[in-house]
Amino acid sequence: MYLFNFGVHYIKSLLHLLFKIITLDLSKFQQEFLTYKEAQNLTKEPKNLYQPISYILNLGGKKIRPVLTLMSASLFTDDYKKALPAAYAVEMFHNFTLVHDDIMDDAPLRRGKQTVHEKWDINTGILSGDAMLILAYQYFENYPPIIFQKLAKLFSKTAIEVCDGQQLDVDFETRNDVSIEEYIKMISLKTSVLIGAALKMGAIVSESSEKDAEILYDFGLNLGIAFQLQDDYLDTYGNPETFGKQVGGDIIENKKTYLYLKALELASSEDKKILNNFYQSKLKDSNEKITLVKKVFDRYQIPTYMKAQITNYSQKAFVVLEDINISEGAKKGLLEFGKALMTRNV
Amino acid sequence: MYLFNFGVHYIKSLLHLLFKIITLDLSKFQQEFLTYKEAQNLTKEPKNLYQPISYILNLGGKKIRPVLTLMSASLFTDDYKKALPAAYAVEMFHNFTLVHDDIMDDAPLRRGKQTVHEKWDINTGILSGDAMLILAYQYFENYPPIIFQKLAKLFSKTAIEVCDGQQLDVDFETRNDVSIEEYIKMISLKTSVLIGAALKMGAIVSESSEKDAEILYDFGLNLGIAFQLQDDYLDTYGNPETFGKQVGGDIIENKKTYLYLKALELASSEDKKILNNFYQSKLKDSNEKITLVKKVFDRYQIPTYMKAQITNYSQKAFVVLEDINISEGAKKGLLEFGKALMTRNV
Repeated sequence: MYLFNFGVHYIKSLLHLLFKIITLDLSKFQQEFLTYKEAQNLTKEPKNLYQPISYILNLGGKKIRPVLTLMSASLFTDDYKKALPAAYAVEMFHNFTLVHDDIMDDAPLRRGKQTVHEKWDINTGILSGDAMLILAYQYFENYPPIIFQKLAKLFSKTAIEVCDGQQLDVDFETRNDVSIEEYIKMISLKTSVLIGAALKMGAIVSESSEKDAEILYDFGLNLGIAFQLQDDYLDTYGNPETFGKQVGGDIIENKKTYLYLKALELASSEDKKILNNFYQSKLKDSNEKITLVKKVFDRYQIPTYMKAQITNYSQKAFVVLEDINISEGAKKGLLEFGKALMTRNV
Repeated sequence: MYLFNFGVHYIKSLLHLLFKIITLDLSKFQQEFLTYKEAQNLTKEPKNLYQPISYILNLGGKKIRPVLTLMSASLFTDDYKKALPAAYAVEMFHNFTLVHDDIMDDAPLRRGKQTVHEKWDINTGILSGDAMLILAYQYFENYPPIIFQKLAKLFSKTAIEVCDGQQLDVDFETRNDVSIEEYIKMISLKTSVLIGAALKMGAIVSESSEKDAEILYDFGLNLGIAFQLQDDYLDTYGNPETFGKQVGGDIIENKKTYLYLKALELASSEDKKILNNFYQSKLKDSNEKITLVKKVFDRYQIPTYMKAQITNYSQKAFVVLEDINISEGAKKGLLEFGKALMTRNV
């Protein structure tokens, strides 16, 4: 089991006990959400539009984002179930991005199953995706006007940021001068703003103070960045036996993650050349490529720099929480939740 | 000049005079809209996301839909300019559908210029289109919560209907049992609901009564159907010298419009066979195909049936207007506007 052990000692000490509690809470919210999801009608006409939507929503996944919305609502109200429509909107939006991104990435598989455009075709993927984005907005109609407007505004802002992030990611593929700052900005837009928004929506629905809603957003934003950086780290340094994905996948795909960008920043001109050469080709023997690239990373202590960054963003997330106006118990629960998110079985 | 002369005599008699007035009013709203459009900032980063949006919005076009929103608002308030953000949202949405539809139809040209996915690529078309849909929603944020919710609800309902209509259109391509009723339903969803919504949004923004807003919606819906049917009619029977597009294009493309469906309904089994054969192939000599298909249409007086349908929907549109609670002058103006919409230089 991989522990979040980059110097955040107070986390590690609590982890074993907390994990049980958290798993329990998570599965409660998860179950509530799945029950709500099942009750939604997606057997509408025209079938060729709605079946793909139902398909992608039923591919599984941990439902992290909607669970965050429910959990966040539960911090301010016992009636956290009223956050279910907002949670569903978040999940619908997330799946919309998966459908359109999979077309753009020409990806054949999603969660081990055929992607929508593979199972149907690209046109179906485009149109069903469009419909999902609209359906997400429709779920906010379950709320009265002022809450509706707050949710829809946050949602639109977030959605356009996710588009911006996706475009930056595409742009970076053909750029050789991406800075680490730009990279953090990109992952922040592409993945973290939705984590922040998912949490903030729970606060909006349960009519928390503006300040608390903002704190939860910042908590999610920073935790989201830490989470994505950790994802990048594990892609290269995870345990192959338990990681789930192919370790080294980012190196094979020449993805310019933090590891690569930081190495380029610190490496000698000779090592830079080695890295650049590797990242401009797709080799047959990817194992050798992975080994040699990791050697360069290790030579400049890139994993250490990266762990420091992950710690940095995690701590930022936890620090903003200090000012939130919820019970100590709830605050502790939230902290534990964040820590659990940063704990992975790899 | 093609006049709307299918028995609606009272229209024809007024037309020459009215056309001038209407052109004047139209161009006023059009000008207001274009000025507002120019003032919107689309030179944002990332450029590769926003330049295509700016490109498609600047390809020209008559801006019928946003003009409808402004005109509708002007029926209830002198301060019709407050409808500009809603009008812009409608135009943005319409252009979003053009970008995604052009990908789905593999269309190289739009208004005589390269389509977005041709000028850039399919991924850019998908992502820029997505962003446009979100940007459209953001323009409603210019209104206070209750109006915001009304606009966004109507918009979402309309947008999902347009997706439904697009899917039905795709489905019909491979179906041989499409009824005329289904066809009317499809064009109603794909094109007319947005005409109705554009008008209703003007009413919502200027805080008309619910009833008047609904009347305008129904007016637009019926007029939209009449307009689309007329479009189909002109595609086959328009004057080649002035029509703008290739006359007979729908026949060449085997599009199952009202003309074809009605002919299938009435034709002898022999003529049905002829039609079916023509509509299952793409001939080199399309002129001969057009001539022979039109002969079958003419044999069963299909143009007459179609004109009756167009009259039917136009009259429905004008009849619903009778109950609207606006000044007689304004009502007259609206009627004239509708008639002008049904008048084309072909």
